[in-house]
Amino acid sequence: MVSVLGAAPTSAEILQASASDEWRSLSPENALYLELPHGRVIIELAPQFAPKHVENIKRLISLRFFDDLPILRVQENYVVQWGPSEEQKATKHDPTKLPAEFTRPWTKAGWTPLRDADAYAAEVGFFEGFPVARSPKEKQMWLTHCYGMVGAGRDNAPDSSNGTELYAVIGHAPRHLDRNITLVGRVVWGMELLSSQPRGHGAMGFYEKNETGQRFNTVRLASEVPEADRTPLQLLKTDSKSFQKYVESRRNRREPWFVRPMGGVDVCNVPLPARVQPTK
Amino acid sequence: MVSVLGAAPTSAEILQASASDEWRSLSPENALYLELPHGRVIIELAPQFAPKHVENIKRLISLRFFDDLPILRVQENYVVQWGPSEEQKATKHDPTKLPAEFTRPWTKAGWTPLRDADAYAAEVGFFEGFPVARSPKEKQMWLTHCYGMVGAGRDNAPDSSNGTELYAVIGHAPRHLDRNITLVGRVVWGMELLSSQPRGHGAMGFYEKNETGQRFNTVRLASEVPEADRTPLQLLKTDSKSFQKYVESRRNRREPWFVRPMGGVDVCNVPLPARVQPTK
Repeated sequence: MVSVLGAAPTSAEILQASASDEWRSLSPENALYLELPHGRVIIELAPQFAPKHVENIKRLISLRFFDDLPILRVQENYVVQWGPSEEQKATKHDPTKLPAEFTRPWTKAGWTPLRDADAYAAEVGFFEGFPVARSPKEKQMWLTHCYGMVGAGRDNAPDSSNGTELYAVIGHAPRHLDRNITLVGRVVWGMELLSSQPRGHGAMGFYEKNETGQRFNTVRLASEVPEADRTPLQLLKTDSKSFQKYVESRRNRREPWFVRPMGGVDVCNVPLPARVQPTK
Repeated sequence: MVSVLGAAPTSAEILQASASDEWRSLSPENALYLELPHGRVIIELAPQFAPKHVENIKRLISLRFFDDLPILRVQENYVVQWGPSEEQKATKHDPTKLPAEFTRPWTKAGWTPLRDADAYAAEVGFFEGFPVARSPKEKQMWLTHCYGMVGAGRDNAPDSSNGTELYAVIGHAPRHLDRNITLVGRVVWGMELLSSQPRGHGAMGFYEKNETGQRFNTVRLASEVPEADRTPLQLLKTDSKSFQKYVESRRNRREPWFVRPMGGVDVCNVPLPARVQPTK
């Protein structure tokens, strides 16, 4: 067991040394604020991957569709899902029909490849702040089901989702869902409020009649919220130099605790750095 | 998007059709019952990987060391950790010094390889019911930090753990910990009781002074518990034919919901089948 620790910087040191223009402010037009009794969950929407779903979700928000919706399902090591309760379905119903948005054409600009092996895709990496996989053969790319990714629940028909029921991944990345369901974004803040919800005891983690799922007070776009009430989040740009250094620091951990850097990293084991905008 | 669904069986069908001698009963000598207020968590110890740590944990159980210990730390997307509180350390202290048990010599018998790519190790697979990685060059194998794996917390010195503080993985597999810390077993039952604990607000998810971690009423070996009070758990043998078929059914999902089988699977995305012994 030989330690190969060197003078390379740690993740913390890299983030500390990053330039302010390597961070982007979360766009208020693509930031969803889900207000739970104990705090705020923030989702960054991904219109570049699921334009029609995101458009419909924004329309539903403008109709206040998601207000008062309960968490319906918490399946251990899998997903938290929310949507209209049986009773709410009478008034909260959206007949909008959307196509499946499982993949999109790839582009070279903005792509930060990860050179490490992946069990599920020919290529993995990051694109505009999201973990992504690609197929050079099909020239397509798609969001990967990492921890915290948010998708649109569907029935057996691939085009049966429209964003009225959403889920967030709360366990080991269920990558077998990739290209099988439409991902619409990623939780960038407050993930612990979803992941610590009590598990449901019904099939697939759905709550039984005697179990009460926590409800969202309101769901708003950040742009609808007075500026003083917004969370000034910044995310490290995934095409920045500091992000590349950060990935390397995850591949080979340099903190004194580690005795053996691994020399590899999984696309879902790179927590994407977020911070509250520093005050000057 | 072409569906290649065929007549291959689903995971559920494979488990249904498995032979009774493909399941093993969890050994009462290696099953830890952690009794939380809301239920029982069961850990299978792995003496074949960490003999000295497991021996010491069993000795500590016989001294009732773990009874009344609180959960000290719940770090989002990482670990739940328990051990003596600051107050308990006066009476609950174990000076036992153990070597690091990060790896062990490999053996060919009992090895079920996974052919899929892995970002962290040259080879991955399963050995006697555990997810494992191997190095053909070093002829060593080691447990992998998948969801639910249990390890012995340590300080910066590699040989500073003795099993008095244990942690369980509650997020995406932190495989960068592999070969950096001693794993001692795996949660095989009741994992949701750990993963849904409220997250701590201190550094690294430690509870702050004003936060109360849930306590274990008792921690016992199953062999110490009257037979009527035991959970008759069975685990699918990882060197059985049905397990191999099951892995294939995870690699290429056959349920009607799926439109695109992935053709690959991550060693940490194969939930190891457990069941309560069927009554005849």
